[in-house]
Amino acid sequence: MTDLLTVPALDGAWQGALKQALDGKAKPPGALGRVEELALRLGLIQGQLRPSAARPVLLVFAGDHGLTRSGVAAFPSGVTVAMVDTLLAGKASANAFARVTGVEVRVIDAGVAADMSDRTGLVHAKIAPGTKDASLEPAMTSAQAEAALSAGARVAADAIADGADLIALGEMGIGNSAAAALLMHRLAPAPLDDCVGQGAGHSLEGMARKRAVLARAAARSDAKEPLEVLTQFGGFEIAMMAGALLGAARGRVPVMVDGFIGSAAALLAVRLAPNARDYCLFAHASAEAGHRLMLEALDAQPLLHLDMRLGEGTGALLAVPLVRAACALLAEVAELADVLEAAG
Amino acid sequence: MTDLLTVPALDGAWQGALKQALDGKAKPPGALGRVEELALRLGLIQGQLRPSAARPVLLVFAGDHGLTRSGVAAFPSGVTVAMVDTLLAGKASANAFARVTGVEVRVIDAGVAADMSDRTGLVHAKIAPGTKDASLEPAMTSAQAEAALSAGARVAADAIADGADLIALGEMGIGNSAAAALLMHRLAPAPLDDCVGQGAGHSLEGMARKRAVLARAAARSDAKEPLEVLTQFGGFEIAMMAGALLGAARGRVPVMVDGFIGSAAALLAVRLAPNARDYCLFAHASAEAGHRLMLEALDAQPLLHLDMRLGEGTGALLAVPLVRAACALLAEVAELADVLEAAG
Repeated sequence: MTDLLTVPALDGAWQGALKQALDGKAKPPGALGRVEELALRLGLIQGQLRPSAARPVLLVFAGDHGLTRSGVAAFPSGVTVAMVDTLLAGKASANAFARVTGVEVRVIDAGVAADMSDRTGLVHAKIAPGTKDASLEPAMTSAQAEAALSAGARVAADAIADGADLIALGEMGIGNSAAAALLMHRLAPAPLDDCVGQGAGHSLEGMARKRAVLARAAARSDAKEPLEVLTQFGGFEIAMMAGALLGAARGRVPVMVDGFIGSAAALLAVRLAPNARDYCLFAHASAEAGHRLMLEALDAQPLLHLDMRLGEGTGALLAVPLVRAACALLAEVAELADVLEAAG
Repeated sequence: MTDLLTVPALDGAWQGALKQALDGKAKPPGALGRVEELALRLGLIQGQLRPSAARPVLLVFAGDHGLTRSGVAAFPSGVTVAMVDTLLAGKASANAFARVTGVEVRVIDAGVAADMSDRTGLVHAKIAPGTKDASLEPAMTSAQAEAALSAGARVAADAIADGADLIALGEMGIGNSAAAALLMHRLAPAPLDDCVGQGAGHSLEGMARKRAVLARAAARSDAKEPLEVLTQFGGFEIAMMAGALLGAARGRVPVMVDGFIGSAAALLAVRLAPNARDYCLFAHASAEAGHRLMLEALDAQPLLHLDMRLGEGTGALLAVPLVRAACALLAEVAELADVLEAAG
């Protein structure tokens, strides 16, 4: 665990050479805007003048939330296992987008409330079958919180050992926008009401119930320290995403962070190990209400604004071509000096 | 020419079935935001419940501008031919991005001010070696304007005949942000000063000169009718992009429009044939100053905001994966009803 929190700072020594390489390409300096920013960031993370994103892997962590028993979600908890099966069958939105963008998908059972031990193609890392109801008691034990973080780091390390040079984070978990709202409330920090959005969809009545349940959960514990906040509010998939982020950062592999739940995991990781922030690429500004404030807390400007709020890592996947374009800019584009010489 | 302007309206009969198909996918209704909008638009254009973007082709039209002789551009006119050679060698930013996104690139000599007849791999459609200096005289004859529009339509039709199911438009032409500013000024319409940006880069002095030259050009002619505006101000590559847009629309193929110059071509096409607007997908909001107003004139909300201002179709290329994701959503994602049934 202590090891996990030791994330190296970026090596700023590459900054000058990367800037020079980008300015030397056959285009007006800065004319590729955020793609140039990305190229610079990737080079700094990987310590390379020619960073690569040849083998991106999307890790989709799945888990259930005891909070759903108090009615925070619009869909029944059983949808989590059904969507995990859909992901394993290659028929979820994330699978479709991953085929388009050339990304491998790995699905991890972080804490689904069903026995999934018979599923092939699933990474079995279940901490427990769902968290406890955080409006009544701590979502997990601190041992479980640490185990989930470590398991996430291991999943990322395995992907990196298999050749992954870009890790994208996704999730599936009915009720997880509720847990993410509680994490944001304590870790951003921000007023609880500003952290609560409609998740996968809610009636006005549903939103009122979600707000009331989360207020009860928040009133139950005044946790502020990141590991304690995680223990109190959950969930397993969020913890594992944070662990994966830390694991990737320790391996100097950039992490594509997606949406509201992913950003809550990033916030947790960054509060545990501030250097981790430098390894994050923020993919998409979610339509979920609290995301704008959460991004401010992370000092993040996402690459995409597509008004999506699905999760599964769909936003992260759509940003992967931008990362590859940034790599291709450094590796494949002619030098401006050569073009100007040819122009006479 | 009259034929070219006959663009069919979209067949709204598909609207209901497409909306139903999208709402039936395994996700909360609307949760994929702009990707769902794209899927709906693509289905309407192609008249398909499963539209495709399996074979996108980027058409990069190149041309020179007589306006450069009056000093509107930061780079010498000879850079156009050097960049065309860079594109043909596969070493421009557009080539690099096209490899990342799986898009074929075709480069068209619309009016480069150099003899390029010996270049293989170049589509030879030169109208003339550059336009006249529009600050002194009309940029082209009306016969040349019509010829350029027709040639553009032909290039698009050829790509479609070869299997293209998505046409992206790009351009290369030193000085073309100046010509595009004049087109916008008359066709948006908008005050000239609001249409002039820094193009590929300018000193304060360079910007003042660009503004003065364009004011002189605008003072020379009060043209307002689209074909006359094109004749007065140019350029050949912009005319050909507009023609390609019209040609693609006539073939019911969606067109990815990119940046400031591409939007000026789209504005020209839409003023010539208003139905053409429905076939446009707007890729990227350029950092070029006038683009925001131009997009308003086109009632367009681009998919990407990446602070780029390079041209070549780079923004269009980066939006292609979003189009493919929209197609994959309709073609490959499970039905929500099946997931809910499995969830019990």
